[in-house]
Amino acid sequence: MIIDCHGHYTTEPPEHHAFRKAQIEFAEGKREASPDYPSIDDETLRATIEQNQLRLQSERGSDLTILSPRASGMGHHVGSAAVNAEWSRISNDLVARIVGLFPRNFAGVCQLPQSMSGDLAPVLAELERCVLELGFVGCNLNPDPSGGFWSAPPIYDRYWYPLFEKMIDLGVPAMIHVSGACSACLHTTGAHYINADTTVFMQLVQGDLFRDFPELKLIIPHGGGAAPYHWGRYRGLAMMLEKPDLAAHLMRNVWFDTCVYHQAGIDTLFRVAGPDNILFGSELLGAVKAVDPLTGFNFDDTRRYIDALALSEAERAAVFEGNARMVYPRLDTRLKAQGR
Amino acid sequence: MIIDCHGHYTTEPPEHHAFRKAQIEFAEGKREASPDYPSIDDETLRATIEQNQLRLQSERGSDLTILSPRASGMGHHVGSAAVNAEWSRISNDLVARIVGLFPRNFAGVCQLPQSMSGDLAPVLAELERCVLELGFVGCNLNPDPSGGFWSAPPIYDRYWYPLFEKMIDLGVPAMIHVSGACSACLHTTGAHYINADTTVFMQLVQGDLFRDFPELKLIIPHGGGAAPYHWGRYRGLAMMLEKPDLAAHLMRNVWFDTCVYHQAGIDTLFRVAGPDNILFGSELLGAVKAVDPLTGFNFDDTRRYIDALALSEAERAAVFEGNARMVYPRLDTRLKAQGR
Repeated sequence: MIIDCHGHYTTEPPEHHAFRKAQIEFAEGKREASPDYPSIDDETLRATIEQNQLRLQSERGSDLTILSPRASGMGHHVGSAAVNAEWSRISNDLVARIVGLFPRNFAGVCQLPQSMSGDLAPVLAELERCVLELGFVGCNLNPDPSGGFWSAPPIYDRYWYPLFEKMIDLGVPAMIHVSGACSACLHTTGAHYINADTTVFMQLVQGDLFRDFPELKLIIPHGGGAAPYHWGRYRGLAMMLEKPDLAAHLMRNVWFDTCVYHQAGIDTLFRVAGPDNILFGSELLGAVKAVDPLTGFNFDDTRRYIDALALSEAERAAVFEGNARMVYPRLDTRLKAQGR
Repeated sequence: MIIDCHGHYTTEPPEHHAFRKAQIEFAEGKREASPDYPSIDDETLRATIEQNQLRLQSERGSDLTILSPRASGMGHHVGSAAVNAEWSRISNDLVARIVGLFPRNFAGVCQLPQSMSGDLAPVLAELERCVLELGFVGCNLNPDPSGGFWSAPPIYDRYWYPLFEKMIDLGVPAMIHVSGACSACLHTTGAHYINADTTVFMQLVQGDLFRDFPELKLIIPHGGGAAPYHWGRYRGLAMMLEKPDLAAHLMRNVWFDTCVYHQAGIDTLFRVAGPDNILFGSELLGAVKAVDPLTGFNFDDTRRYIDALALSEAERAAVFEGNARMVYPRLDTRLKAQGR
């Protein structure tokens, strides 16, 4: 089967966006009362998926998408800890409903209620709720809740340790994923996302996070940012910092997805990272919605680039399925319960 | 001949660093008087070069390095406009002395006295001085003088236009190059440099800078940051923004250097950008000072990766020499005056 590890629910009904707009007005003191979340019926939700993600799964030939709330919509820099807790709960509940409507097509990954307050208590509580009550299989961890100012501590800092402990307790990985950028200089999907992936990879080089957490599993999306392209730089910097070789230092705990939208990039990713550290992903209904005039297919139809590689059957199975089952053990359990 | 477009004077004598330390103390109000720059004799300068850059030119087989002051030392976020003007002048004068001592081995590129004040008047004055009085052939332009906070306008903003007009008047290109990062989250050479290259490339996609300045020439170093690896993403984003194809939109005015420290990365760079848009560079005595145990050679001995490519003689000549003579017309004039 083919598991797409990187999908966002970016086709939310307009009522959902209207609520968020009102919630932000409340957070900014432009509105007196906190708005109530509207009732959205199953038929409405079903339609947003059938016409989009489900159609594309069928057209492109994938079987299951790991689905999380829209990343650019997380907006951790916007509200207070309380507002962000409400927004995460609502966004995660919506994903849980999609998974409930299409249990064979989706598995849930949650948005975390991070905020500029830095308080991790609501983050741990929401992660636990999503995994134990909603059946989610992972979380998206924002390494920069300030939206481009990098005001939180680096990922190897002990500040994050309670979250890593909770992830290991629950048996879930995190995809490193920022939200929208505050600065006009940083285009969200063209700069901030890729920069964050690169920044966190370098932070991992600098730290010793996996010495303390050998069971921790992190996915760096968008093909690992710039890391595979600059692999020699990172190998050399690791040597200068007197760290072990990247294979031992990081690559037992880090996976890259295949959200790299051209053949030359995918070729580099596989050549550098190898099939054991790659999870199939397409950012389905994500950042780049356009047809490549050179190929006649969507830029984000990433399966085509992988199909063009000379992979063995075992390598292909690892990238499309096996690695995801291993990185997301709760997904594996869920699939087995479905007889898959 | 082989021209290395990306070298920094990173082997400055200790007196130079001591001055800078005192100057920062003065800028921060920790010292009453502005320090005087020490006298450094030619023999001292000569030794710092002969044992380092000159030795490596000879060992690695390059003929001329385009040399600029240490990029991480520019520190545009540190001082006032006046302090930064003094620091740039001193740093550029030092490079001019190196070029004077070894006129066949180096050509000068200047640091600009940018500052958090945003005032471009001293920037234009120093650029003019360096080109017309010191014979420099280009400049390093910092798109983020705040050191990671991106407080300056994006590169396509009219704020920068007086500088671009001056560059065109003088016939010099700019290498986009940030300085040290302020944030502990952003490793200077492992994250901030690469992120800035990626960020500016995306800014160029968003804007229409070269419609207004068809003669403007920019070099995005470190192999273009993440851009070549994510070429499909940028092509798709350009389509979504209703911009022309990248070839027409940007690649008549933008060049990438070869500061990518492994074969797979260089292969990707050449496959995506092609020899017409690539300048040989090694960041000589720069970011990564280590020997790759897999090859037995320094990571930044980038000529080896290019020599391993199946380039035609014309392509090879373009990357090693012809493109640099075209992008830096004052270098070409200088070389011709030397009979080269």
